[in-house]
Amino acid sequence: MENSKNIYEFGRVTEGDASMRALLGGKGANLAEMAKIGLPVPPGFTITTEVCNKYYSNKNSLPTEVWNEIKKSVTKLEEQQGKKFGDKKNPLLFSVRSGARESMPGMMDTILNLGLNDETVEGHAEKTGNPRFAYDCYRRFIQMYGDVVLGIKAKDEHSIDPFESALNTAKQNANVKEDTELSAEDLKNLIRKYKEIVRKYSSKEFPQDVFDQLHGAISAVFESWNNDRAIIYRRKYNIPSEWGTAVNVQCMVFGNMGETSATGVAFTRNPATGEKIFYGEYLINAQGEDVVAGIRTPNPIGNLSTDMPDVFAQLNQVCQTLESHFNDMQDFEFTVENSKLYMLQTRNGKRTGLAAIRIAVEMVQEGLINKETAIKRIPADSVSSLLVPIFDSDTKKEISSIASGLPAGPGAASGNVYFSAKKAEEMHANGESVILCRIETSPEDIRGMLASEGILTSHGGVSSHAALVARQMGKVCVCGAGKLGIDYASKTITVGNVVIHEGDAISIDGSTGEIFVGKLKTAPSEVNQVLQGTLDAKKSYTYKLFDTIMSWADESRKLGIRTNADSPRQAKLAFQLGAEGVGLCRTEHMFFEEDRIDHMREMILADTTEGREKALSKLEPLQQSDFEGLFREMRGYPVTIRLLDPPLHEFLPNEENAINTLSKKLGVTPERMKLRVSSLKEANPMLGHRGCRLGITYPEITRMQARAIFKAAANVIRSGTQVDVEVMVPLTAFAKELKNQTDIIHSVAQEVISSTGIQIKYKVGTMIELPRACLCADEIAKEAQFFSFGTNDLTQTCLGMSRDDVNSFLPKYFDLEIIKTNPFASIEPGGVGALIKLACEKGRSVRENIKLGICGEHGGDPASIKLCHQYGLSYVSCSPNRIPIARLAAAQAALS
Amino acid sequence: MENSKNIYEFGRVTEGDASMRALLGGKGANLAEMAKIGLPVPPGFTITTEVCNKYYSNKNSLPTEVWNEIKKSVTKLEEQQGKKFGDKKNPLLFSVRSGARESMPGMMDTILNLGLNDETVEGHAEKTGNPRFAYDCYRRFIQMYGDVVLGIKAKDEHSIDPFESALNTAKQNANVKEDTELSAEDLKNLIRKYKEIVRKYSSKEFPQDVFDQLHGAISAVFESWNNDRAIIYRRKYNIPSEWGTAVNVQCMVFGNMGETSATGVAFTRNPATGEKIFYGEYLINAQGEDVVAGIRTPNPIGNLSTDMPDVFAQLNQVCQTLESHFNDMQDFEFTVENSKLYMLQTRNGKRTGLAAIRIAVEMVQEGLINKETAIKRIPADSVSSLLVPIFDSDTKKEISSIASGLPAGPGAASGNVYFSAKKAEEMHANGESVILCRIETSPEDIRGMLASEGILTSHGGVSSHAALVARQMGKVCVCGAGKLGIDYASKTITVGNVVIHEGDAISIDGSTGEIFVGKLKTAPSEVNQVLQGTLDAKKSYTYKLFDTIMSWADESRKLGIRTNADSPRQAKLAFQLGAEGVGLCRTEHMFFEEDRIDHMREMILADTTEGREKALSKLEPLQQSDFEGLFREMRGYPVTIRLLDPPLHEFLPNEENAINTLSKKLGVTPERMKLRVSSLKEANPMLGHRGCRLGITYPEITRMQARAIFKAAANVIRSGTQVDVEVMVPLTAFAKELKNQTDIIHSVAQEVISSTGIQIKYKVGTMIELPRACLCADEIAKEAQFFSFGTNDLTQTCLGMSRDDVNSFLPKYFDLEIIKTNPFASIEPGGVGALIKLACEKGRSVRENIKLGICGEHGGDPASIKLCHQYGLSYVSCSPNRIPIARLAAAQAALS
Repeated sequence: MENSKNIYEFGRVTEGDASMRALLGGKGANLAEMAKIGLPVPPGFTITTEVCNKYYSNKNSLPTEVWNEIKKSVTKLEEQQGKKFGDKKNPLLFSVRSGARESMPGMMDTILNLGLNDETVEGHAEKTGNPRFAYDCYRRFIQMYGDVVLGIKAKDEHSIDPFESALNTAKQNANVKEDTELSAEDLKNLIRKYKEIVRKYSSKEFPQDVFDQLHGAISAVFESWNNDRAIIYRRKYNIPSEWGTAVNVQCMVFGNMGETSATGVAFTRNPATGEKIFYGEYLINAQGEDVVAGIRTPNPIGNLSTDMPDVFAQLNQVCQTLESHFNDMQDFEFTVENSKLYMLQTRNGKRTGLAAIRIAVEMVQEGLINKETAIKRIPADSVSSLLVPIFDSDTKKEISSIASGLPAGPGAASGNVYFSAKKAEEMHANGESVILCRIETSPEDIRGMLASEGILTSHGGVSSHAALVARQMGKVCVCGAGKLGIDYASKTITVGNVVIHEGDAISIDGSTGEIFVGKLKTAPSEVNQVLQGTLDAKKSYTYKLFDTIMSWADESRKLGIRTNADSPRQAKLAFQLGAEGVGLCRTEHMFFEEDRIDHMREMILADTTEGREKALSKLEPLQQSDFEGLFREMRGYPVTIRLLDPPLHEFLPNEENAINTLSKKLGVTPERMKLRVSSLKEANPMLGHRGCRLGITYPEITRMQARAIFKAAANVIRSGTQVDVEVMVPLTAFAKELKNQTDIIHSVAQEVISSTGIQIKYKVGTMIELPRACLCADEIAKEAQFFSFGTNDLTQTCLGMSRDDVNSFLPKYFDLEIIKTNPFASIEPGGVGALIKLACEKGRSVRENIKLGICGEHGGDPASIKLCHQYGLSYVSCSPNRIPIARLAAAQAALS
Repeated sequence: MENSKNIYEFGRVTEGDASMRALLGGKGANLAEMAKIGLPVPPGFTITTEVCNKYYSNKNSLPTEVWNEIKKSVTKLEEQQGKKFGDKKNPLLFSVRSGARESMPGMMDTILNLGLNDETVEGHAEKTGNPRFAYDCYRRFIQMYGDVVLGIKAKDEHSIDPFESALNTAKQNANVKEDTELSAEDLKNLIRKYKEIVRKYSSKEFPQDVFDQLHGAISAVFESWNNDRAIIYRRKYNIPSEWGTAVNVQCMVFGNMGETSATGVAFTRNPATGEKIFYGEYLINAQGEDVVAGIRTPNPIGNLSTDMPDVFAQLNQVCQTLESHFNDMQDFEFTVENSKLYMLQTRNGKRTGLAAIRIAVEMVQEGLINKETAIKRIPADSVSSLLVPIFDSDTKKEISSIASGLPAGPGAASGNVYFSAKKAEEMHANGESVILCRIETSPEDIRGMLASEGILTSHGGVSSHAALVARQMGKVCVCGAGKLGIDYASKTITVGNVVIHEGDAISIDGSTGEIFVGKLKTAPSEVNQVLQGTLDAKKSYTYKLFDTIMSWADESRKLGIRTNADSPRQAKLAFQLGAEGVGLCRTEHMFFEEDRIDHMREMILADTTEGREKALSKLEPLQQSDFEGLFREMRGYPVTIRLLDPPLHEFLPNEENAINTLSKKLGVTPERMKLRVSSLKEANPMLGHRGCRLGITYPEITRMQARAIFKAAANVIRSGTQVDVEVMVPLTAFAKELKNQTDIIHSVAQEVISSTGIQIKYKVGTMIELPRACLCADEIAKEAQFFSFGTNDLTQTCLGMSRDDVNSFLPKYFDLEIIKTNPFASIEPGGVGALIKLACEKGRSVRENIKLGICGEHGGDPASIKLCHQYGLSYVSCSPNRIPIARLAAAQAALS
């Protein structure tokens, strides 16, 4: 629905509030909110996100009526401020900033000091009595406008943009290091240079009409919604392109008016660790972009207590106000103009997974939020940050770090070092672990950062682009390690007499900021150490956080959580991490081990049922012993064992040599072996002779597996441990297929029960992984005591996409936004989800209390878990390491 | 629902009628009906098909209460006939025959002369005054009982069964040729031998208790419902195993009482050609099985007018009665006992496709049935018998036949001759065309007959097993060619001094009975000759039949019929056969031709869009000219053109040599070529980079094809022929994929329309061939002006079965009755059909009048056409030769 109002004021008169972020964007809504609660916000107005859509549907152009309204709003501000936009004497200046519904840091564009031209700059100088400052504002304005509106940029990542280059020349000429040291005259000359650059690159004069400037800037912000960086970001975070961005036009305040002015970025808590301390950084005599861009390394916020004690005290107060008002950790920007504090932005701070958990848990303890809010606020995936390996503490004692920087993204990362985003991406695609090392990062580096294990910079502070993005991506990051001499040309890092070359291995500890040469040995996370009994729970605050959040999640969730485990070892780990059973044991994985594969091959090569039975009889005791291990580790929780699934040719060797060796071993001719290998080759093995089709054509396989299962169960029960067996038939399409297999399984079960005299609790069910199985789930439910959705195969068949082959077109699909999420990562709701939903309904229509689960990779994906909750499944099953994520995601699904 | 009555009487008292075939089986119901309309039927009773199910659910045993009822019914018959079952003086004898709901000729078992034992045979001899006859009956009874009940059979197809062997010895000892020549004493000795055989093979004495005999015989008939032959037959004709068989117990009448007795089989019209003549054969002094078994070649029915003129006149009268009562061609069995006629069975006669059409058409002309009945009565597939090639008449004049037999299955067949069913099956599997040559066929030969092009026998008449089965299967058959010396041992046929060896090519004309050495040249069918203008329509009665039935079908059907055609030639043929448009033109087939494949390969090997466009520009005029041909042949009817569908690697060579040749031709290194070939290889190409995924990643392909289509359309319109274009996008899963492609197609269409100034009528639609497309058909219908169901791919994905790989397990599935019909031949209704139905509903919910069609092989399958009619599709599309079948099947669907 369209809103008729295009523009909302804030400051003196405030029309919006925090609840209106869809319309005003996050920045606009929070500026309004801060103004409402009495924080010092320079006045301005927000052009709504709906205008963004109008802009695009009006052929990428501002509709005339909107422009007229903007001009009216400017007039109001002129009246309020007693200044005039474009006035030679007393000019009103604006910042123009984007502000989408969800914050997209560094993705969108900003313009400061708008309204300056050759004439107004003089008025600005006169009015402020500070010509140097005025010219600094003007040259900044030209530079930003040139970049953002006129598209004058560096040609590639190795070149410097022409404005920066001119600035450097000016500093050289003046023989100074910092741009703050340039004189008014230097700056006037620089402005001339800048205008020449504009003429040369855009074939136009720099616009002197301030309304032209404003029109261009607003349009450019709207255009920036569809630049490459924004699109990539939106794709990664699933932000719909229809949301659009708002534009905030705000009266300028100046952090660059001299030594009593400053600008900074701060957090109400540490966004990397979650610790409750005032955290951030600032620059004296600077404008906002200087801090974020990482060009100058800013001062830690603590220093402000000596530089500007009053402002520091006021900021501490602001922290408390913001947290108690927004009930969440805030990330805010401020400017001090001649010792007066202004708030320019606040938002819920991006944070690392670790910080998200710590802040949520501690805020509950502080009474700021309740448990449910805490659970909802932690991205489920972030729990994994508590489980990733850390550097081994003994090793760290032996090898000393060569340098250190700011710990901006906690965790341990090792990899080969590369100096450009492109190269990092390339080597990652080649299978290398990569550490991206840059002097500073910029939005153009996003893809390379995504491809890296860790990010290392020599410039920029904890709110630099590198730090910000790394935190959000959950990447390990050390930034502002000033001791590193990074040279792009020679592709080296030099620290003292240590020289690290491109491709060399390094390790970075994002929790401490340390940098090491070589790949450091890692140790299990603290949580794993506690679970494994090698660390006292009381000594690990991380474990306490983990345990707290898991117990809260378990209170809320409705879904059961099981694990996919093919060995007792995996089952044990999963049990420690909270698994309530095994949802999928892929029995074929047991066949791949060294001593077993040859028996399997013998079975496949046999010509007769007897020959197959002979080979199977060798596998049986091995399988049985694995099953016993699984049952013991699961201590009476259900264990779902899937019968042999993959096509048989997967077990046979392909290469000449391997065939010869095997043929000798099994006493068949290589020719016969080759013949058999090639006779088992299939055009589309995914749709071939596999799943229950194997058990139906070779019932002796099913009999062997069933016998191993039930004999194992009997043994374990005899030794005093409860067992809950679920035998699962794969790839059922027809109820009669299942009937064929369940008949065998039940009869073997009865044999074992009567021969051992031990009662075994068991169910027989099936994978639901073909569209027909979903469509005919009512018929199948008559035979099946449980369903487990095999979403991988279901995705392949429902979408007609082989997981092994999609990479030839899926990247293009993402580019074109044909699909937004990899359907093999997250359940595709329109087709695959619809089939699951239908199968649940049909299954229940026949067997009211049928157990419904999901195994396969989707079982550990939060978005898919949410769907599973909605479909009313009984449980999800995932790999052991994703169990904690699944527990949290299940709680979130229940609370949403 | 179970019927409480287990037994129905017929004869003196008649409880059933023709409408009760589900319960009484075809034979039982029609015996009752004949009795009701006054035809001479020996009395008896029918045990219902429900008892068959009771038998199986009672652990393969007759329930006691049923047995008691049977004994009561025997008592009633004893009272009616004044004889007593098992009586030494005046014994009552029975035949026991199976009788299923649908006639299954030769599949089930029959026992005659039941009630004879060492004592009753003497009474039978005395009462009939004919000891020779009595002993003949007894030895026949032992032989049949031994075979059917006790399972004493020949070991394999090359051995003779022990009874037959003993019979031969007896004939040799008596120095006679025919068994009718054996004396009473000879037969008495033979009976002794027979009883020894029973003792030896079954380790039991031949049962002397007549009730034991009856109990055994009834049980054996029920058992025969599940013998291999019956199961194979049911599978072929889709008869559910739950139907069961009835058992008919009937008082014996004897065709073997001497020269005034006879037995025969006759048809009210010729079942091979449909001609309205009394047709059949008989044997004097024989029992029923002798005729059908083909051991003695019987006399043509016409001879009966001299042998038994009264009976012949009476039979002619029976023919008229039966046809006017049953309104269909009847196949009946009769026995003449001492000049008195008895009717033992009547049923709707099996007939060839040609006969089915002729009979149906002529019965309408005779006023016996209406057009709708005629249409419903012709198996749709049988129309194809009017279209298959015939032997070229000129060639037949040059080459004279070496022998001739009875024309029992019309058509022309050439192939290599084999002498056993097993070998025929084997060589067929090797890809050979096979003619199965047997002295006589038996039910064991069914699989081999199915595998053969034609069947040739030296023994047996037009109602022999060979003739019967060939007619029903639509196989070419020449039987009873007595001049052929067939020797199984040396595997030869000798005719005069011509010797034909196993594997030699022969030709048989089932319309004339002629047999030729070598493969004869064939000519188009008469229908095709008329359609092609090389034969005057008035001179061909076959064409007249074809034309009549097609015009009746067109009056009734609701579905449109289109063709799959990839070339103008195919389109022309289809148009002649009645196609109302092209439902599928697979454009890639055009690329495989000699002069084009290299351009295609050049396109695939290109690295850049420009390189691809260059190669495509060479293909464009070639495609355009094909499309022009299609449009011209279709004369304004819609032509659906599918864009490139298969994965690109299908176009590249695989073999070393071919790669080298091609690499020279295209000027790339063989290494690069190999690299590209292997980079295009996919794990599961069916689920890979194909369909619209190609057009999305390489939009220049779509642009080229669209341009060729619209430019062709413009040219044809310019020349004065109307054109109705439908551009079809393959393998859509997501609406946005389709949007991507339709945008390109519409923009190319507009370009061509504005550059040529010619208005082109066109639609853009999509294949629906993935489960997701069905589930999201509402979204897709927003973009698609029509849907065409690609049931082949839909079957593959819905069932998770690759058509190229199913043969490894599908035969087993048929054996186990997990599925009954090949899902690639007939739409699988539970999954695939359900998806189609859903997609139709969803498509119409968004676009009420959306055109819905089906292309792919299922479009020519009558069962699938029926489903398509039910789902309310607009049309079906099939290969040109199946168009007439589809027209008829569509009419049948509309009438059912």
